[in-house]
Amino acid sequence: MAEFDLIEKYFAPLSMDGLKNDTAVLDIPAEHQLVVTSDTSNRGDHFVEEMSAFDAGRKCLRANVSDLASSGADPLAYQLNLALPKDLDERWLADFAAGLAADQKLYNIALSGGDTTGMSAGGLSVSITALGLVPRGEAVLRSGARAGDVVVITGILGDAFLSRLHMPSPPVVLAPLVRKYAHAAVDISDGILADLGHVCAASGLSATLEFDKIPLSKKGRAALKNGEASVEELLTWGEDYELAMALVPEDFEAFQAEANALGVSLSIAGRFDTRNSEGRAVTVLDASGQAMHFSKTGWVHF
Amino acid sequence: MAEFDLIEKYFAPLSMDGLKNDTAVLDIPAEHQLVVTSDTSNRGDHFVEEMSAFDAGRKCLRANVSDLASSGADPLAYQLNLALPKDLDERWLADFAAGLAADQKLYNIALSGGDTTGMSAGGLSVSITALGLVPRGEAVLRSGARAGDVVVITGILGDAFLSRLHMPSPPVVLAPLVRKYAHAAVDISDGILADLGHVCAASGLSATLEFDKIPLSKKGRAALKNGEASVEELLTWGEDYELAMALVPEDFEAFQAEANALGVSLSIAGRFDTRNSEGRAVTVLDASGQAMHFSKTGWVHF
Repeated sequence: MAEFDLIEKYFAPLSMDGLKNDTAVLDIPAEHQLVVTSDTSNRGDHFVEEMSAFDAGRKCLRANVSDLASSGADPLAYQLNLALPKDLDERWLADFAAGLAADQKLYNIALSGGDTTGMSAGGLSVSITALGLVPRGEAVLRSGARAGDVVVITGILGDAFLSRLHMPSPPVVLAPLVRKYAHAAVDISDGILADLGHVCAASGLSATLEFDKIPLSKKGRAALKNGEASVEELLTWGEDYELAMALVPEDFEAFQAEANALGVSLSIAGRFDTRNSEGRAVTVLDASGQAMHFSKTGWVHF
Repeated sequence: MAEFDLIEKYFAPLSMDGLKNDTAVLDIPAEHQLVVTSDTSNRGDHFVEEMSAFDAGRKCLRANVSDLASSGADPLAYQLNLALPKDLDERWLADFAAGLAADQKLYNIALSGGDTTGMSAGGLSVSITALGLVPRGEAVLRSGARAGDVVVITGILGDAFLSRLHMPSPPVVLAPLVRKYAHAAVDISDGILADLGHVCAASGLSATLEFDKIPLSKKGRAALKNGEASVEELLTWGEDYELAMALVPEDFEAFQAEANALGVSLSIAGRFDTRNSEGRAVTVLDASGQAMHFSKTGWVHF
């Protein structure tokens, strides 16, 4: 099937304007800034071969809206760039587009454009660039955490490690509250240790987590008990796409009430401090208050 | 080499803010709209293996800024998404980044973010999403051509077909003049017949070109003479990345004077008309005024 036919059949219906141009023209409301983020997901690496095309589409888009949420940005539109094996089953593409369509509704985001190409060398690569909006000056960065802030985590962690078919649910609905309450935020795409490490590095701080307060899923706790997973595996595995945030302890209760009303749970898992002398940005304490030791801090993509 | 190290070493120096966050926050000036476009370039398909990494970086970026120019948009920033074979020579990446750096200066565009991934399945895919700015309401679309408009083409066509190592030079500097003069515009990425066909379809018109007035390069004319290339091959080959535009004939002289002052040549190659009854959007006339026949109209990506 030719590129134009594929686009017309599967992607034009997802778009704002039918993809009649190579460019999209977008209005940016006054007193807002544009937030831009990109994620590439390759089949066999970022989503497994066994994942349905429907779920693959959703997972690729969710990796991007998750980054928008971490900045406190409301979704606006996304560009979809596909490099597909030339012998791709058209059914795969139909299901992939259906997954995107379902998530577009869920996250209130539209397709603005993109490119569909065949790749002689094989492989299937999905690159998405998502665009979001924040009121001017209100974007939340990694660099804003302050000593004394609590480390607040949304939802639960661990299920992405336990099932490669797990579908993350980034708390995109939380974006306005992230802007309202968080000094700094990051999405947990590379593992809580690595991602929190990024916040510490950007903010010039360290962070200490209490292992028992990290919101691990029931399955995660059970897997730890029966030896199916190690603490390190759960904390260094990415793709849970929850948020880790820094806020003043006094704000937690109000934030929690508002987040719960949106269906998002929050946990205080630790605290940011001035940079410690040991050089380790993120420390995890076990139940007896001893620092736990890990051989790696997160997911290495390359 | 790990993803974060690669980004720090090769891409952070190209960026506006050192890529310290997963998102970039961009200011959009008042009374402007955002123009977004994406192109994916796969090694072996969109740039040949023999092309240097330096030139590959430039060609990938140029395919995108060309689309911005066709909309009359001034370049703002771009996102770079890479899916790389896991055994990639680091030298390749260094040269690729150097090519991007050179073109960033040339086109006044900065790297805002992106993603670098390894692809187990092999293949090398470069997806770029470019962002540009137009004064509100001034974006040039494919749909604005009017019957009686002349078809104006920038630069010369044909060299991209004659050498797979040819480096296109999209006339990005022309963007303000595209806004000022063109009713419709498209970049010639899929071949003049196909791309002009898109304008005709979107505008509900047909177009007639005179073959002798199509600005073919000297090499292209010579290749026609000695049988190295056919007319069809030259007119249906993409990647020249020149612009085809629609404007009123009366404006041509003023446009040409202003374009020449910027180092861009313009040619009138034909005219837009009401849709003809024969169903062919784009007709090319030979020197005797006879319609030329082609078996295909442009490059099919997939």
